[in-house]
Amino acid sequence: MARSIDIQTTTKKKQKPLQHELGFGIHFTDHMFIMDYADDRGWHEPRIVPYQPIVLDPAAKVFHYGQTIFEGLKAFKTTEGKVLLFRPERNIQRLNRSNERLGVPALDEELALDALKSLIAVDQEWIPTEPGTSLYIRPFVIATQPALGVDASTQYQFIIIMSPVGNYYAEGVNPVKIFVESEYVRAVRGGIGEAKTAGNYAASLKAQEVAKEKGYSQVLWLDGVHRKYIEEVGSMNVFFKINGTVHTPALNGSILDGITRSSIIQLLQHWDIPVEESTMSIEDLFKDAKSGALEEAFGTGTAAVISPIGELNWLDEKLVISDGKTGEISGKLYDTLTGIQRGTIPDPFGWMVEVNI
Amino acid sequence: MARSIDIQTTTKKKQKPLQHELGFGIHFTDHMFIMDYADDRGWHEPRIVPYQPIVLDPAAKVFHYGQTIFEGLKAFKTTEGKVLLFRPERNIQRLNRSNERLGVPALDEELALDALKSLIAVDQEWIPTEPGTSLYIRPFVIATQPALGVDASTQYQFIIIMSPVGNYYAEGVNPVKIFVESEYVRAVRGGIGEAKTAGNYAASLKAQEVAKEKGYSQVLWLDGVHRKYIEEVGSMNVFFKINGTVHTPALNGSILDGITRSSIIQLLQHWDIPVEESTMSIEDLFKDAKSGALEEAFGTGTAAVISPIGELNWLDEKLVISDGKTGEISGKLYDTLTGIQRGTIPDPFGWMVEVNI
Repeated sequence: MARSIDIQTTTKKKQKPLQHELGFGIHFTDHMFIMDYADDRGWHEPRIVPYQPIVLDPAAKVFHYGQTIFEGLKAFKTTEGKVLLFRPERNIQRLNRSNERLGVPALDEELALDALKSLIAVDQEWIPTEPGTSLYIRPFVIATQPALGVDASTQYQFIIIMSPVGNYYAEGVNPVKIFVESEYVRAVRGGIGEAKTAGNYAASLKAQEVAKEKGYSQVLWLDGVHRKYIEEVGSMNVFFKINGTVHTPALNGSILDGITRSSIIQLLQHWDIPVEESTMSIEDLFKDAKSGALEEAFGTGTAAVISPIGELNWLDEKLVISDGKTGEISGKLYDTLTGIQRGTIPDPFGWMVEVNI
Repeated sequence: MARSIDIQTTTKKKQKPLQHELGFGIHFTDHMFIMDYADDRGWHEPRIVPYQPIVLDPAAKVFHYGQTIFEGLKAFKTTEGKVLLFRPERNIQRLNRSNERLGVPALDEELALDALKSLIAVDQEWIPTEPGTSLYIRPFVIATQPALGVDASTQYQFIIIMSPVGNYYAEGVNPVKIFVESEYVRAVRGGIGEAKTAGNYAASLKAQEVAKEKGYSQVLWLDGVHRKYIEEVGSMNVFFKINGTVHTPALNGSILDGITRSSIIQLLQHWDIPVEESTMSIEDLFKDAKSGALEEAFGTGTAAVISPIGELNWLDEKLVISDGKTGEISGKLYDTLTGIQRGTIPDPFGWMVEVNI
């Protein structure tokens, strides 16, 4: 990609938040990346500018028809001061798969990766270093054409913002309680569940609110067709260790193809722990739990990395998993993955990509 | 509702477009309505201001998690200069039902209606009067809290914009060709299909794009569970006249509860034409079409009012309906509904609400 990124740095830097008070996605760095799309010009004017509001016509399609895509990935600073990204090319590839599903024109993947790296280099002093912290990167695309006809936009913006973050869950890696959702559905095959797009998250909020009122952190989603097969947990993929084998629902068109998910599978295979992707019913899971075969359960995602599940509630039947504690494999996966990410453990997979700063 | 709406009028009015060149949702009036919500203040500061860009933090939740609702309704000016709204209380009630599904705090319905009327009064000179034209009104809610955690926003804006419009389809009331969608799904029971929210429309764009490439105006959506029951057509409800009875899919949780839909049912009952809401399979419909029992088909919605269907393509089998012409009932419904709306035909149902200007 020959197009060079124009960089306009800020004249007044913000004060950085304390590292133990970061929270998740609340504070943002000094700069952002923007690139525009118009039907007659393609993607153009890639630029890094001071972090600033987005100014849109009230008729911009993103406000009405939800034509928007996002990604989430993290950058880490090693004790030697190197800056590492975790499998960024995977996020950019998925961004383009989501774009395709939502009728958004594809991004040049090399330019998008270059944009990520350039923005990180400009704001590298924002990468936190304390345990559990990282720089969360949020690339997203929004439809900006001001027109109310229901069709794909002719104008878009691709934007990258970055937030220094602590643990996603206030609980940290402590086990969470999960409510198995029987009323609401997140996504269905043929829908947009595989894409990382706003509508799937909007669909999830109500169920999450109801679960929270009942004292649960997240919901476990069942499939929209049979209402019995396990899909995801909250906005994470989900794994179960049953009789020594780690199971996760097979990708079926309505489950997000998680990058942490695929990394976990690779790690387990590397350790010679049997891992299976298959269709999993909630009924079988509860049987396995009652027989003692279910040993561990955990969610996986970029934000939380590994989130152990300590309790499941399905139709008012409660299951305690791993005595409500973090299981052995869950803990080992968390330590290994975060160790590789921060460069304290060797990376045999070539996952980490160094950013020249 | 005691809260009064602050009105700040523009000092430079825009030039109005020619009435025969309006298109749909492209031109916007001189003013807009805005009201803010914050968790600690509730909905506050209802105001009419000059039409202006929305300025949001790039982390605003609407860009990422699609927590947004919209409505669409129309205002008409009669030959005597009266301004009429078509069943606006229905739109406001549905707005609040959608809000509930998406975890958005409810609006005061009286205030929302007052906001609609006040904005129309301020911009009443924008209501076009030529046949087929009207003032399209787009109330919408967006989540504005700048935070990347996946949960319901603590801040929102309720906005109303207005656009003088011509016919929604360039084809006018001419019959359209419809592609029966077998791959993509719009919504599923338990999801957000019943709500008027961005995600449903985002989910529809790809299928519509593929259908257009094949020479079809819109798609007919089948249910996401069995992939055989008829749900909607494009972004409209759908009706079929079979052996003298008019059928429409029953509301099932994934179909939008259309205000034009319910008005059509009421009109047909008023005319003593049998009308049935039931589960309808695409297979039965094609059988009825082949036997000659299918007499007419049409979509219904605020934007297009009645959109006759002249051809259906299901798995490459093509059905011509009503010889590809506008059917008798379709035409009569269009004429009657638009006549009631513009005040040229008596309104026996009390649908029209006059706006004091």
